[in-house]
Amino acid sequence: MLRLYNGLIMPMTERCSIARGEIWTDGDRIVLAGDASGRAMPAFEREIDLRGGLVIPGFKDAHTHSAMTFLRSYADDLPLQSWLFDKVFPLEARLNPDAVYAFTRLAILEYLSGGITASFDMYYHRDAYAAANLDSGFRSVICGALSAGDRVETAARDYEQYNSMGPLMGYRLGAHAEYTADEAVLRGLAELTRQYKAPFWAHNSETKSEYEESFTRRGMSPTAYFESLGLFDYGGGGFHCVWLDENDMDIFERRGLWAVTCPASNAKLASGVAPLGRFAARGINLAVGTDGPASNNALDMFREIYLACVLQKLALGDAAACPAESILYAACSAGARAMGLMDCDCLAEGKQADLAVIDLDRPGMRPIHDIAKNLVYSGTRDCVRLTMVAGRVLYEDGEFFVGEDAGRIYAEAEKYTKEICAQ
Amino acid sequence: MLRLYNGLIMPMTERCSIARGEIWTDGDRIVLAGDASGRAMPAFEREIDLRGGLVIPGFKDAHTHSAMTFLRSYADDLPLQSWLFDKVFPLEARLNPDAVYAFTRLAILEYLSGGITASFDMYYHRDAYAAANLDSGFRSVICGALSAGDRVETAARDYEQYNSMGPLMGYRLGAHAEYTADEAVLRGLAELTRQYKAPFWAHNSETKSEYEESFTRRGMSPTAYFESLGLFDYGGGGFHCVWLDENDMDIFERRGLWAVTCPASNAKLASGVAPLGRFAARGINLAVGTDGPASNNALDMFREIYLACVLQKLALGDAAACPAESILYAACSAGARAMGLMDCDCLAEGKQADLAVIDLDRPGMRPIHDIAKNLVYSGTRDCVRLTMVAGRVLYEDGEFFVGEDAGRIYAEAEKYTKEICAQ
Repeated sequence: MLRLYNGLIMPMTERCSIARGEIWTDGDRIVLAGDASGRAMPAFEREIDLRGGLVIPGFKDAHTHSAMTFLRSYADDLPLQSWLFDKVFPLEARLNPDAVYAFTRLAILEYLSGGITASFDMYYHRDAYAAANLDSGFRSVICGALSAGDRVETAARDYEQYNSMGPLMGYRLGAHAEYTADEAVLRGLAELTRQYKAPFWAHNSETKSEYEESFTRRGMSPTAYFESLGLFDYGGGGFHCVWLDENDMDIFERRGLWAVTCPASNAKLASGVAPLGRFAARGINLAVGTDGPASNNALDMFREIYLACVLQKLALGDAAACPAESILYAACSAGARAMGLMDCDCLAEGKQADLAVIDLDRPGMRPIHDIAKNLVYSGTRDCVRLTMVAGRVLYEDGEFFVGEDAGRIYAEAEKYTKEICAQ
Repeated sequence: MLRLYNGLIMPMTERCSIARGEIWTDGDRIVLAGDASGRAMPAFEREIDLRGGLVIPGFKDAHTHSAMTFLRSYADDLPLQSWLFDKVFPLEARLNPDAVYAFTRLAILEYLSGGITASFDMYYHRDAYAAANLDSGFRSVICGALSAGDRVETAARDYEQYNSMGPLMGYRLGAHAEYTADEAVLRGLAELTRQYKAPFWAHNSETKSEYEESFTRRGMSPTAYFESLGLFDYGGGGFHCVWLDENDMDIFERRGLWAVTCPASNAKLASGVAPLGRFAARGINLAVGTDGPASNNALDMFREIYLACVLQKLALGDAAACPAESILYAACSAGARAMGLMDCDCLAEGKQADLAVIDLDRPGMRPIHDIAKNLVYSGTRDCVRLTMVAGRVLYEDGEFFVGEDAGRIYAEAEKYTKEICAQ
């Protein structure tokens, strides 16, 4: 058993309220979150003095392509089409499982040092990806990414395989996007959603052209098209959701779908600003993701929550738009539910021990008028003192505990990057 | 003498190129920056192993209100007018020198932990402000902020006083803004610019209404109005510059004025996005600032350079707009020249030893395709290993060396915050 004491907790059982309290963990579970007074003290393996710091449930990166670390800063400041077709796609074609393993391990270091405790990932070479997560002790849910011509049987096999690898790994049914899928694949996936009573996910309305061209291809928006095929009968959601129209939002609202916003990527690729204010007004479920490091370029949820709030103010010309607490909650608690990690959404007895410790003795965290606003508007990853996943401390005071030396992880990532980019 | 070795340097003598090399300092000056092979080794007081890290000239925060740390997270997510008139102004009226000293010391910790080596500050209680900087060993230039009814003699006295306090402190002539000044004050300042052959600074065209209302008040834009009074005869510049028109840009270009962009503040207060692409096309001098922590809310130049690039892409709908290197250069090297710190703009023999050491062994800095892009697009303050001002290490490995315990600085800032906000 571990004990975290002498600090504050933001359990997110009731939005972003804060209390004095302790966290006790046993194995991968929380056994106490809150007031420990009057409780008999068990024999703890370790007692961690929070030194006045704050425990939060940890960020959930609800949309990413972890292994794209190898493309970070490789081809920025280019027009979107030449970036994608001349730079990204040719190199991705050269990927192999060993490279994806190395690049994913690098990404996990970035997640952990930024207080992220789980990712919702979509990429190639999924066995290597899963191994990198399990070897690191990190939690991830893979999202299927079927495209035109792919075999739906693959998705069924992946679903069975990755959902039976224990609590650190999961799989959700998904297509890459409306513009890359064909109707046969989507109808097959719809059949699987019914078979498994499972949600469906896809990139959705990331760019204006994607949204507009769907009307030419399908006679309707991507959201309406997915809906028309029955893909949302068991819920799910969309990644990006920059260009949803009111009818799309009707569908999201009625079906309880999740919009996963990726503000950094949408800004850097000049895709636009998702209408988070409209989502909030309608009560549409919101989660937050980084997208991959090729487009972002960081895997940093502090950046995302800051941008989500600030870009909404800028886009609406209203400094009061998109209050900080709502986005912090979406990024930490709601994101877990979006991914189906129902045991990772808050700090409470019986929940998975996924958490981050925020050092409030950093300049940007002072003074303390409002900790949630500090986290969103002046929080940075240098405030993250400790990150725990499933009861294991994987990051603490700048050091990683992921079963492999960080220096070796950097070196392996550099080696495979050179191999792939130099071919 | 100090030696920094076993790493890379980005001297910014030639934009953002990188070389292997060492930095040697003697007192507050650099005595070697580059290849040390063949040089006799002096007896160093200390040799700092860079462990493969990168030395940059340090960020220059070219527009800030440091002491506004006390308002961080106090009143966010409010409409601009109620934020300013109901929250900010009433509390600022309660400030006293001791409070400004405490709040400034807190700000300096934030600057240092983010690799910032100098600030260009505009605020009240300037003696206390100067003392906080000098006691910390930090470098700052005060910008005058005269408003309607202020005595121009004060500016003359401040000019003489703060410019004679040694190389860590300076003063530039300035008015708060067109909308807060009157013609008598501005004519007096114009006279001082001629007397001292000195540049003139002011908040300029931060909001659309400020720009538009200037036409009602003065019959022309703020820039044209300042120019018409002869205020720019010896150069200078403007803070924010979000709403400059083509005629304003003509003036900036012809006069060699500096536009200081503050993208985070402009976004959070929904003021807009400065036309950095137009500035670059015209060759207008650019520097970067955070603005104060009440509006930003961080004093973090990593955030600013990221936003400067990304918001430009978003605003122009062009992912190729505003390449990273140009903004990194503006934030580190050009900013020094904007502030008149001609000895702090690059790493070269004879220059002031103002620098930051970037740890490249952090996840967001890997792999290394392009270090400048890594710094701009995935750089965060957790990569800053060391910050040196005038040859003194003021921050290293998370610890501060500013003549006062950081814990005490936090406590003092909290104490005065409570006093002022509880009245």
